[in-house]
Amino acid sequence: MEGVFGLKLSGNGVIVQSGGPTAVINNSICGVIWGWQKWAAGNGTLYGALYGIRGMLEDNLINLSALDQRTFNALGYTPGAALGSCRYKLTADEDYMELLQSFKKRNVRYLFVVGGNDSMDTADKVHRLARREKYEMRVIGVPKTIDNDLPFTDHCPGYGSAAKYLATTVLESGIDLETLITSNRIVILEAMGRNAGWLTAAAALARRGRGEAPHLLYLPEVPFNREQFLEEVEEVYRDRGYAYVVASEGLKDSSGRYVFAGSGKDSFGHARLGGLGDTLKGLVEENMGVKVRCLNLGTAQRASAHYLSRVDNEEAFLVGRQAVRLALSGHSGLMVTLVREETDYACRTGSIELDRVANVEKKMPLEWISPAGNDVTAAFLEYARPLIRGEVALPTREGLPDYTRLPGLARYRSRAAGECRPAV
Amino acid sequence: MEGVFGLKLSGNGVIVQSGGPTAVINNSICGVIWGWQKWAAGNGTLYGALYGIRGMLEDNLINLSALDQRTFNALGYTPGAALGSCRYKLTADEDYMELLQSFKKRNVRYLFVVGGNDSMDTADKVHRLARREKYEMRVIGVPKTIDNDLPFTDHCPGYGSAAKYLATTVLESGIDLETLITSNRIVILEAMGRNAGWLTAAAALARRGRGEAPHLLYLPEVPFNREQFLEEVEEVYRDRGYAYVVASEGLKDSSGRYVFAGSGKDSFGHARLGGLGDTLKGLVEENMGVKVRCLNLGTAQRASAHYLSRVDNEEAFLVGRQAVRLALSGHSGLMVTLVREETDYACRTGSIELDRVANVEKKMPLEWISPAGNDVTAAFLEYARPLIRGEVALPTREGLPDYTRLPGLARYRSRAAGECRPAV
Repeated sequence: MEGVFGLKLSGNGVIVQSGGPTAVINNSICGVIWGWQKWAAGNGTLYGALYGIRGMLEDNLINLSALDQRTFNALGYTPGAALGSCRYKLTADEDYMELLQSFKKRNVRYLFVVGGNDSMDTADKVHRLARREKYEMRVIGVPKTIDNDLPFTDHCPGYGSAAKYLATTVLESGIDLETLITSNRIVILEAMGRNAGWLTAAAALARRGRGEAPHLLYLPEVPFNREQFLEEVEEVYRDRGYAYVVASEGLKDSSGRYVFAGSGKDSFGHARLGGLGDTLKGLVEENMGVKVRCLNLGTAQRASAHYLSRVDNEEAFLVGRQAVRLALSGHSGLMVTLVREETDYACRTGSIELDRVANVEKKMPLEWISPAGNDVTAAFLEYARPLIRGEVALPTREGLPDYTRLPGLARYRSRAAGECRPAV
Repeated sequence: MEGVFGLKLSGNGVIVQSGGPTAVINNSICGVIWGWQKWAAGNGTLYGALYGIRGMLEDNLINLSALDQRTFNALGYTPGAALGSCRYKLTADEDYMELLQSFKKRNVRYLFVVGGNDSMDTADKVHRLARREKYEMRVIGVPKTIDNDLPFTDHCPGYGSAAKYLATTVLESGIDLETLITSNRIVILEAMGRNAGWLTAAAALARRGRGEAPHLLYLPEVPFNREQFLEEVEEVYRDRGYAYVVASEGLKDSSGRYVFAGSGKDSFGHARLGGLGDTLKGLVEENMGVKVRCLNLGTAQRASAHYLSRVDNEEAFLVGRQAVRLALSGHSGLMVTLVREETDYACRTGSIELDRVANVEKKMPLEWISPAGNDVTAAFLEYARPLIRGEVALPTREGLPDYTRLPGLARYRSRAAGECRPAV
């Protein structure tokens, strides 16, 4: 079997999860485990580092080769970061040298980093350091982010499920808004997305007929104009008697300042304890005298495993498995990508150098945003529609999804908590 | 077939939906339609009044006897009020006399009101007026509310699905919180429930092991104490490094004032544009210096049909069907109830006089709230667990639930919008 791959390199493997979880991030772990067991079990043991790269530094590892089948299966649909994650950025050279020592100590020759832009930067630095120090090691990045902002990949695992959940919520609460006549018939939903509007854009998938919710979308790619926003909301409200607005948390004005800066004050100088949604709610209520309802799904957007996109879930597994193949073929310093086939919808995997992905954000192309700047185009919908296809029927226990937790995580948790340096 | 029922009364039937929708309210409509077609088709036509009792007054009716099978099936899992709903309360005697005229004009002898406490009051008044005016008519109430606050019924259709959705969200975002070490590790979720804490309490179903989310629950049945709240949050946070709080939007302090009054100021005098969740977020951030994340699922709580409780969905149909049986048996002035069987879980239907339900709110029994006032007891969990059992696999279209819309609703919508007097 090993014949299909490159030069054999004996040694152990480590998986690291990093940054905010997605609803399918753990199925990428499953993909790596599956690939390792099939093709690399003879090389050594596959470990999981607990709570990100810190787990490696502190030798807090669990043996993933020994995972029982039941836990493995449940892992494939469990939200959160099963290995634990951390917003922790290595900065000093000494940190990297220490990390390399920890790899040597455990004879780790394969590193799989499941993460976003920041994590790919870390992975790239490890890859370069190992090469410089002549420690043979293969480092492969596995993409994940609900923000869908990694470049060179058609889309990112995690985005499809977040998009499906958000669009479903807009569809359902949109019907609620449409069918109940009450005094607050303007809804503003704040969607995740600090710098890229991909998730907000996905709300448009909910709209199947003319006039259906969402009516207005505001993305960080388009500078936010307060007067224009108020005019647009008023127009929809006047026409229909109600309005459904979806806005990215990271909206910025024309000078590049966040509309809601998170400081407790918005960019208009008013004290706001809510978020962007509450800022817009305040604007509308003060100017239109209409009561507004604000929805903020928060972390549920990246944890909504009860309504997974099957396409997304399967692709998350695929990129994890492919990471093992690349490593076993002798590659290092690459991130797995998804490449869309020309006909119908299907994705195969590709790869890209880590340093071309590291710290780069892919925003929504401006041609996929409507000329008025408050909607998406048909081309975007065509791009996004296949990504939310299919469901995954989860096993349940007492009426709720039967998620799993990896052993060892809880024990380590209290030690890790509170010590963590926030990401830069 | 008609032999099993009481004296035959020829005439038409009308269904009215009223108040906030639930995820299963339309399956009660299906139950009425099913019962009517099976047992009463010979009596006359079954109509739906569009946008509540206003549709009757304005003769905006659709023929539900003529509904095609495909729409009927989709109706059973579509959220929102398929007939349209309105927070509109008849107050003047003339309104009721006018309403009676509209029934006479259409020879309506059967009225089915799907609603909560307010709606049962309206139904009761119609029942009494018809009797006083010697117009033979049978008025039956069909319970619905995610608030679960109707008396004399074990629980209310709509509650189980909202509870399942809320508990699932807390389970998923709780795992997210547990597994990601970051700088804001306190989550406050604001749950619907102005006066009764049933839905907030259901969040506890998410907790399967010690220390799992939710850690603290605040219900309107317990006077809110600011200092105690802060101490409790601090204690959980100190112990675990994170904390998950669920609080009812309708929390009141010991003098009975809402903690968040919706006026733009909280009861502490601070300007707040968010809701109760943001008020608590502000409290914690100001006092503990920790960043808090606030979740507000808003109307998604009553529209989450993509993750229905099968038990809830089936019971919603059951109470609708039973309403037809009661009416055909000669009853009037009753609301259908759910009666829990002693062994295992099953519910049969019962009934109660409308005037005993009208405007009465059933709160959480204090013995189901923990002595410390920040959690529920095992007895509550035992009560609630069967209500969220089972799933309903919805047909999808392009990756989203394939919901339906009744014909006629959109046409009428623009006229009804904006004219509606808000409920008293």
